[in-house]
Amino acid sequence: MPIQLPTPVYKPAFNITRASHVVHRVADLAASRAFYVELLGLVVSDEDRETLWLRGLEEGCHHSLVLKLGEPGCERVGLRVLTEEDLDLAQRHFERTGFPTSWVDVPHQARTLHTRDPAGTPLEFCATMETRPRLFHQVESHRGACVHRLDHVQVVTPKVDASLVFYNEMGFRLSEYVVSDDAIFMVFLQRKGNPHDIVFAEGPGPRLHHVAFTVPDTQSLMLTADLFVRAGKAAQVEFGPARHFSPGLARFLYLLDPDGHRVELFPTHYQTIDIEDEPLRWQAPDFQIGGWQTPPPGWFKDASAFTRS
Amino acid sequence: MPIQLPTPVYKPAFNITRASHVVHRVADLAASRAFYVELLGLVVSDEDRETLWLRGLEEGCHHSLVLKLGEPGCERVGLRVLTEEDLDLAQRHFERTGFPTSWVDVPHQARTLHTRDPAGTPLEFCATMETRPRLFHQVESHRGACVHRLDHVQVVTPKVDASLVFYNEMGFRLSEYVVSDDAIFMVFLQRKGNPHDIVFAEGPGPRLHHVAFTVPDTQSLMLTADLFVRAGKAAQVEFGPARHFSPGLARFLYLLDPDGHRVELFPTHYQTIDIEDEPLRWQAPDFQIGGWQTPPPGWFKDASAFTRS
Amino acid sequence: MPIQLPTPVYKPAFNITRASHVVHRVADLAASRAFYVELLGLVVSDEDRETLWLRGLEEGCHHSLVLKLGEPGCERVGLRVLTEEDLDLAQRHFERTGFPTSWVDVPHQARTLHTRDPAGTPLEFCATMETRPRLFHQVESHRGACVHRLDHVQVVTPKVDASLVFYNEMGFRLSEYVVSDDAIFMVFLQRKGNPHDIVFAEGPGPRLHHVAFTVPDTQSLMLTADLFVRAGKAAQVEFGPARHFSPGLARFLYLLDPDGHRVELFPTHYQTIDIEDEPLRWQAPDFQIGGWQTPPPGWFKDASAFTRS
Amino acid sequence: MPIQLPTPVYKPAFNITRASHVVHRVADLAASRAFYVELLGLVVSDEDRETLWLRGLEEGCHHSLVLKLGEPGCERVGLRVLTEEDLDLAQRHFERTGFPTSWVDVPHQARTLHTRDPAGTPLEFCATMETRPRLFHQVESHRGACVHRLDHVQVVTPKVDASLVFYNEMGFRLSEYVVSDDAIFMVFLQRKGNPHDIVFAEGPGPRLHHVAFTVPDTQSLMLTADLFVRAGKAAQVEFGPARHFSPGLARFLYLLDPDGHRVELFPTHYQTIDIEDEPLRWQAPDFQIGGWQTPPPGWFKDASAFTRS
Repeated sequence: MPIQLPTPVYKPAFNITRASHVVHRVADLAASRAFYVELLGLVVSDEDRETLWLRGLEEGCHHSLVLKLGEPGCERVGLRVLTEEDLDLAQRHFERTGFPTSWVDVPHQARTLHTRDPAGTPLEFCATMETRPRLFHQVESHRGACVHRLDHVQVVTPKVDASLVFYNEMGFRLSEYVVSDDAIFMVFLQRKGNPHDIVFAEGPGPRLHHVAFTVPDTQSLMLTADLFVRAGKAAQVEFGPARHFSPGLARFLYLLDPDGHRVELFPTHYQTIDIEDEPLRWQAPDFQIGGWQTPPPGWFKDASAFTRS
Repeated sequence: MPIQLPTPVYKPAFNITRASHVVHRVADLAASRAFYVELLGLVVSDEDRETLWLRGLEEGCHHSLVLKLGEPGCERVGLRVLTEEDLDLAQRHFERTGFPTSWVDVPHQARTLHTRDPAGTPLEFCATMETRPRLFHQVESHRGACVHRLDHVQVVTPKVDASLVFYNEMGFRLSEYVVSDDAIFMVFLQRKGNPHDIVFAEGPGPRLHHVAFTVPDTQSLMLTADLFVRAGKAAQVEFGPARHFSPGLARFLYLLDPDGHRVELFPTHYQTIDIEDEPLRWQAPDFQIGGWQTPPPGWFKDASAFTRS
Repeated sequence: MPIQLPTPVYKPAFNITRASHVVHRVADLAASRAFYVELLGLVVSDEDRETLWLRGLEEGCHHSLVLKLGEPGCERVGLRVLTEEDLDLAQRHFERTGFPTSWVDVPHQARTLHTRDPAGTPLEFCATMETRPRLFHQVESHRGACVHRLDHVQVVTPKVDASLVFYNEMGFRLSEYVVSDDAIFMVFLQRKGNPHDIVFAEGPGPRLHHVAFTVPDTQSLMLTADLFVRAGKAAQVEFGPARHFSPGLARFLYLLDPDGHRVELFPTHYQTIDIEDEPLRWQAPDFQIGGWQTPPPGWFKDASAFTRS
Repeated sequence: MPIQLPTPVYKPAFNITRASHVVHRVADLAASRAFYVELLGLVVSDEDRETLWLRGLEEGCHHSLVLKLGEPGCERVGLRVLTEEDLDLAQRHFERTGFPTSWVDVPHQARTLHTRDPAGTPLEFCATMETRPRLFHQVESHRGACVHRLDHVQVVTPKVDASLVFYNEMGFRLSEYVVSDDAIFMVFLQRKGNPHDIVFAEGPGPRLHHVAFTVPDTQSLMLTADLFVRAGKAAQVEFGPARHFSPGLARFLYLLDPDGHRVELFPTHYQTIDIEDEPLRWQAPDFQIGGWQTPPPGWFKDASAFTRS
């Protein structure tokens, strides 16, 4: 096969550590709050009339999801670097390689850097945030799906190849990928030691396919679907509970928020840290995306546009 | 509404206690064994070259499912009476009311009585069977879906009304029912104190829609679906895991055995014993059969023919 | 062994159907409410300044637990008969056999009959109660341990033998029993088709050892213990989560309410209806009450006195 | 308080990535196999007459636990570095700081470096191992506790302070610690982004307190305890299932293998990667080690001696 994977970079020039947060624009904060707080169980770290800052039960950081009142779309994907120095090194790296950057002030975050990746994904990087108490053991405060933490995002783009090169250079490790007609169709890229921080899949874009959060166990997926039916929102349960017998191999539930932003819930994932772990290759279409279930057409087709900001 | 429910009979002339077992004919005993024993976790109580006698992990009775080599179909539905005397009283009742009976010898069962209900369902009644050890706590012997016990059967018939009258007379209690166009479309009938021993639903018949077994918890439903995918049998996972927001209100997984006999797996159900419990009325189509999921067309259409024996 | 079990009575003179409810006196209704409603998840059907009427998520009956302000103790154990006629037959039976009866008015219950069993347990019988909606599928209203329904009570008495005879005569079936030094030490008696409605164990009494409620799954036991620790009530988690490798063979968690009334939580139990099911015999001390865990001394020693009313 | 924590080192001279494996000596390989393979569900990657190499269902590496026939004891704790270059840098670092090193050949591992930490813990480092298939989704091959992967080890030592300094220098991050009488009593040290790769607790040593493996969910803890009782090994269930309301805050089950080596099983843990995460401070004895349960004396006292090799 002529597929050529890039050489892993084990000593990147700066240390990106993980997918950190997503900023969505939403049409109705109360509706979004009902979805994310009442039903998914995210916790409100702060709010004002135009913004909700949310975190999972396990998260000590101020937010992993920011909802801003506005024309619906995904505003930005947030990544973490380890230190302020890493942030400066990142800024120089992007400039040198032709990706315009800007420094911005973002509430509750330390110094923050904006840029776009080759796919056009609007990115922001910071080293630290304000902190809040972790609540995972404060079981009396749990509700709904009991979302624990943000895990990864998936972006649809016609530029999967360029994305792979860009993130690989910065030390992202390829954990799984899909090959179709001798082209790379999908890549799982990770820094934090499980299969993915950011995933790119072939398609018209850039658009955000979904944000994935962890939940404590398989049973939470079934309970969550029940809660949506009881809330009169059965139509927002898009796909699952089922299991990917496809990249990731995880159990899942996909939901659509009131603005159509897709959320994946899944229990914990496998660890992948050692360099002898070869990327797992999948040949499309020889796998079962929903195991025993067929994804609805919208799951392939729909995604959130990135906003022009 | 002109719907008239029959008056409950609290002191029936004889004591039918529960749905007990089902006899299926299957084309290939090895294939059926792989399905029921390896994947569902039923236990083999006995077998010979033409028959498999199976029970659930919780069952002390010899069998709740009998598989016989033959032209695929459902041969018979088994019910229990409490005592031998109840069996004689049942026989006289059926004769008196115009349902021909016969006494038969059935391996591993005490004296057994055959008849047909108004829908044409071939029935058999016995008071006792041989016993085998209950294995629910012998966790080292559990496998697959860990089926615990048979719970109920569902029959498709154009004669729902006549079935309701027939079983009501024998002391069955109506727990839930569906009304459609001012006719009774579906009835849940029970003797053992949960919503159903036998269910009748409107449609061409008599045919057996499904046999339902209990599993220990919600998670078992997801695990079972995984096992079917891994065994190359994803196509036999027909519907679910999901939840009926419709009669029964139970979580479920529907599977098709190698001959197309349908099996429902579900965790435990609510208790209904007291006479102040009014039957729960549902108005079709104002409910969600799969909660957030849509049943596939075959789930409505397909069922097992009863064999001519 | 000279142990003689009574002959089962399959056609009792009247139909007792199940253990129905317990009436406790408690020192502080707010404290009891915090325990039973906030932590166990029972639902308030009614309340006034001196009484709380509670039911489980699965129960359509008005109450399975009544808490009255007063000197702490167990006031009464409630059982159900099927019909009003059964209640009259029961009254005559008790009178004839030397157990004084009285008719009483009990709020939210139909006509109610009081008597005492040979052990001295204060009993009440009724056929019906007011009803309330079942909430088991209204998952948004669930909290704490998500108690589903009352299952059984256990009484400590020096008169296990007499109790066995008394309940056997009324059609209770012996499902499991413990023999110690050639005497019957403990009996599980049931009407509703699982191992127990009422259990008697040898000891100074009569006293109520515990009331047992069902919870949806094993995981609920662990979650409940967490909730008690978080509420500063770790000392009220008495024993478990563990499993009886002893009569019942069930997983369990024992809790002590603010007045020392003991509650058992357990997931669902095996079905036992058929008359070929022989009572399961246990020889003390050849079993492991807590499986891998040792019961604390208080679990053997402490129980709630019955009140003099 | 005069407690002084060391300054975190964000750019260590070489990259240690995680706790990798443990080598135990055991008296009877068949007995150990029954414990680790039949009951815990670890998978045999290789074996010969004197050694068993085991891995968890999620692990792609050849082994996380090596059992060698011999005088019972813990032979060595294995850690991973990212690359071969990191291994050379580690070797120079240890030499320079006075910790003698040696290069050894270890079956199924790449080039391996031996040394001892200040506590006296025998360590080995390697960058890579042979690989084996991950089996976490091959649900038909799962058994027993379904152990997924090694997570961390805990060492008892009188030299907690020196251990903290040693590992901190190499880039380990302090996630939680216990202070008692103004001394640091226990430290959780991590590289892989959850609370611990290696833990040091005050006490006579160095000795290995336990090896911790992850299991898929809370329910697995209860099932595992059942399996031990059924196997006649109830006495090897030492503590739990319960929850630490103490460092880590995790649910747990502690087991003792046939040679007394302690194993902790626990479901997944919280993520801690960002540098704004301050180490969580606990003041002894103001916490509840077993939540609602009291640890048995042996849990404090007993640990595996490290072998003299």
